[in-house]
Formats: sequence, structure tokens, C-alpha cells
Amino acid sequence: MNNEVLVVGSVAFDSVENANGSVQRVLGGAASYASICASYFANPRVVAVVGTDFSEQDRAPFLKRGVNLEGLEVREGKTFHWGGSYDKDFNTAVTRFTDLNVFQNFNPVLSEAQKNAKAVFLANINPELQLSVLDQVKNPSLVACDTMNYWISSKKEALLEVVKRIDVFFLNESEARQLTGEYNLIKAGRKLMDQGVKYVVIKLGSNGAMLVSQEGLAQLPPYILEHVHDTTGAGDTFGGGFTGYLASLKKWNSLNAIKRAMMIGNVMASFTIESFSVDRLADLTQPDIDKRLKEYTSMLKF
Amino acid sequence: MNNEVLVVGSVAFDSVENANGSVQRVLGGAASYASICASYFANPRVVAVVGTDFSEQDRAPFLKRGVNLEGLEVREGKTFHWGGSYDKDFNTAVTRFTDLNVFQNFNPVLSEAQKNAKAVFLANINPELQLSVLDQVKNPSLVACDTMNYWISSKKEALLEVVKRIDVFFLNESEARQLTGEYNLIKAGRKLMDQGVKYVVIKLGSNGAMLVSQEGLAQLPPYILEHVHDTTGAGDTFGGGFTGYLASLKKWNSLNAIKRAMMIGNVMASFTIESFSVDRLADLTQPDIDKRLKEYTSMLKF
Repeated sequence: MNNEVLVVGSVAFDSVENANGSVQRVLGGAASYASICASYFANPRVVAVVGTDFSEQDRAPFLKRGVNLEGLEVREGKTFHWGGSYDKDFNTAVTRFTDLNVFQNFNPVLSEAQKNAKAVFLANINPELQLSVLDQVKNPSLVACDTMNYWISSKKEALLEVVKRIDVFFLNESEARQLTGEYNLIKAGRKLMDQGVKYVVIKLGSNGAMLVSQEGLAQLPPYILEHVHDTTGAGDTFGGGFTGYLASLKKWNSLNAIKRAMMIGNVMASFTIESFSVDRLADLTQPDIDKRLKEYTSMLKF
Repeated sequence: MNNEVLVVGSVAFDSVENANGSVQRVLGGAASYASICASYFANPRVVAVVGTDFSEQDRAPFLKRGVNLEGLEVREGKTFHWGGSYDKDFNTAVTRFTDLNVFQNFNPVLSEAQKNAKAVFLANINPELQLSVLDQVKNPSLVACDTMNYWISSKKEALLEVVKRIDVFFLNESEARQLTGEYNLIKAGRKLMDQGVKYVVIKLGSNGAMLVSQEGLAQLPPYILEHVHDTTGAGDTFGGGFTGYLASLKKWNSLNAIKRAMMIGNVMASFTIESFSVDRLADLTQPDIDKRLKEYTSMLKF
């Protein structure tokens, strides 16, 4: 069965500081978190660009998880490097530096195999590049897309073009408000549905996620974690788990499947935030995941 | 069966302004919302004080719901009157005025019937008065308590005395952080448990509520409402529904009962926020409530 998920986005180095400590130049990037997470449910292929400083060791977490790296282009120069720090709330990162390096000229050109993926996850990149990917893929069953405030400010028109052509749109509360001008998240979601997207998934950080769709509304809590280590990549993990899970289904477009995908996104994100980088996420067993899914459904049983 | 819930707190007039309009001098006060809500599950008795300006019409919503008003003392003077306005988020009220009037000298003295209530809900009042109520009641099965930032600043010691003597403590995120000095809500909850309270219920506004207890943690989403009219009294309604539901049970202290109480608190609060004052809350039918409870559990079924 074709359970392939094309993940297009950044593979990067992160340098992060928070109340629990700091790390320098560890594996990061939306496509890293999303593809490694998706690997527990489907067969991800990454399309991204790194520099010549990206080592075998940096590839190891992908390879361990069976992520296909044929689309990981290596260019002369340095890998995208992001530096940020978090306040005690862990929810909002303050960017210290963004060295785009080789990522500045990222221009995804897909191979035949990549074009035929069953599902596509357009991680947070320039919406013009997201459109280029959509022009290349061959009728995928599912297209999900993430974005960020920067693109809403600078490339709103292109982003709204993207929104017309996707099935699932992930964004956080402030992005939903910024993009639609609606404070109420349900109204914001409906405005985005008017633009053409079927399922609007609003990520609520430590409060889980909300769904706005024709089939219905839903708000699901997070998997509760007592100790948060680092929230970097949690949203990307959510998107990757969500998309990977749906890619594993014969029929993904039902309210129940979408709610299960949200549950999986929430549970998988709980692993990411237990460590810096993908250390915990790339090292899970099926029982680890099953245990938390069971605890999650049990929490919501009355 | 003794399903009596003693509700001690404020019965007041509110003047509210928000994006949906404004109302002047409508029925408000924590004990009003809590007791009217509790009436759908148990038999509430209010202990509060009002002025001679409190009319038969103001009593009508209580009487319609069978709330016992024997403990509603009438004093020469005016009823407590609060004025506030909300920004577009509806979550944070800005107080325009607080005319305590006769409430300033509120000093609850309980009758025999009131002392024998099965459950007690100490709504948000001076913790010294909450202690006085606890000194008067005769071994209730359940004591729940609410508070506010003002008492945490001004009467912290008395409040911590209260915390030692209650079963359930309701507070919101910022209150939990302010009282414990812990940013992480689970850690804040555990600190309060160390003080003696068994169940800490942190109200998350539009994101539902979280439970911290020996038996386990839980985070439950809100009942999703598309149109929010006025959030005044939502937290009091949550507390009243929670306590009233538990008072209706033979055995209330299990994780499952507490989770159901949280669900009921969330669902009942959704009615309160559909109108100004208690207009919607006091006018419900059992099918209205059952429908939302069913929708809520269905949303959380996978």
C-alpha cells in the first residue's frame, strides 16, 4: 500500500535556551520533527536542503526511523541555523538569530516518487514554495499545510492561494486571528473554510487543539505532561503525526478519523517536549505510543 | 435524601459592557450563578445579604429554580453592585466600579438547616468569612471553595487556612500561579494538595479545566460555543454545577465522579455565557442539559 507522506520544509540546526538548560546546534527544523513523527504511522520522504556541514550523525535519527532522505539536497554552504530562547511559559520563543544559509535558496524540485506520494505535508516555508510543490505533485489523497506569522505578514496572497488547494490547515491561535481578522477562533476557522480548506486545525499550545470543519467542531485537550523540557518542534510533531496517521488510513476524511489524528498529534507532541531536539521523539517504541494513547482516551472516558 | 448544597457568597447587581451590548443592574453575584446552576442537580440554599432595593423580581430566578432563600438576609441599604467591561476576548473583565454596599458587613450566621447541608460551596468571599462558615457547618460530606486574586494578595494566610479544610479548590490559572509561586499548573496544584486540599480544579477559561489530585490528572476541554454573549458568572456556574452534581451522588470522591463533575461544570457554563445575567441559566430544561452533555461526550469519543 502507498502510505507515503511527502514532507517539504526545513531541516535545520537549533540552538535553544530555556529554564532547563541550553543546547547548541542540535537537529531541528519543521521537516525533521514532522517526518520523524510521521514515520511511526506511514512512510515519510523528506524534501529539504542542508549544507555540507550536515553530518552522518545528523542523518542518523531519520535513518533509524526509516525516513527516506533521497530528497535531502546538500548544497555548498552551511545548514539553516535557528537560535531562540523561551521564558518560563515555554510557549513563546524569542528568536535570537535566524541564519538561513543554504535554506535561503531552497527550491523544491520533486522526483517521480515524491510526486506520487499519497499525502503531502507542507511544513512551514514560503507559501510560494508551497504552491510550487502543489504544482508538481500528482493528485495526492491528502494535503496538509502549516505556516507562521512571518508569511501571513509578508506573503498573505500566496498563502491564501495555498489555502484554496489544501485539505488541512494547521495554525495557532494568533496566526488564525492575524490571517482572518477574526478574534473568535470558530469564526476564524469558518473564514478559512470559505477560502477552500476543508479542515482547519487550530493548535492551542498547552491547551491541545481545536477543529473547525463542515462535519463539526471539536476541541481536544493535550496529553498532560508534568515536566516540560523544551517545546521546540511540538507543533511540527503534531502536524507530522496527524498527517502520517491519516496517510495510513484507507479513508481519512471523516470526523472520527480527524479527531483520532488530533489525538495522535497531541500524544506525539508530548514526547517531543520531553527532550531537546528529536532525542525522545526518534527513540520511541510502539508500546510507548500505545500507552499514552490509552491514557489519553481513558482520561476522556466518563 | 439530603442533597442540600449550602452556597455562601455574593448576590449582587451587575452592570456589564461588552462587544454584544450592555446591561444595567441585572442579577449577578457568585452565589446567584452557583446556586441557580446547582439547582439542576441538588437542592441549594443560599446564604448571602442584599439591600432593601432587592426586589421580588430579582428573587424570581431563584424561586423558579427552587433555590432556598431563607438565608438571604435583607439589610437596610443598597445591594452590592459591580460594574465591569470586557475586551473582545471576553476572558478578562476590567472592573469599572465595586460598590460593596451592604455586602461590606456580610457575616454569615447559619441556621440549623444550613449547618446540616450535605455539601458546601464557599463562593468567592473573604477567606475569614469562609473560615467562619467552616466553623459552623456540621461535618458536610463535601466542601468546595472558590477565591480570587484580591484575597490571595490581601488575606493569603486566612486563605491557606481555608485550603487545609476543604475537599475541592477552584481557581484559575493566574490565581494558581499567584498563590503558589509555581508557573507550571501541575506543580501549583501539587503544592496546594500539600496544604491539604484533595482536588485542585484549575479553571482554564475558554480552554476548559484541569484537575490535579492524588487519583490522577485530567484536562477537559470546554463545551464549544460558537457565539459567546457574556462570560460573567461562567466560573461560578462551573463551581455550582460541579458541587451540585457531586452532592447528588452517594459517593462523590472518585476520579470518575470528579471528571463528570468537571464535564457538568463545563457544559453548564456554556449556558451562562449565552446571555447576560442568569437569563439563559435559569431557564433550562432537562433535555437542554442532556443534549449538551451528550454532544460533549460524543466529541470526546474516538
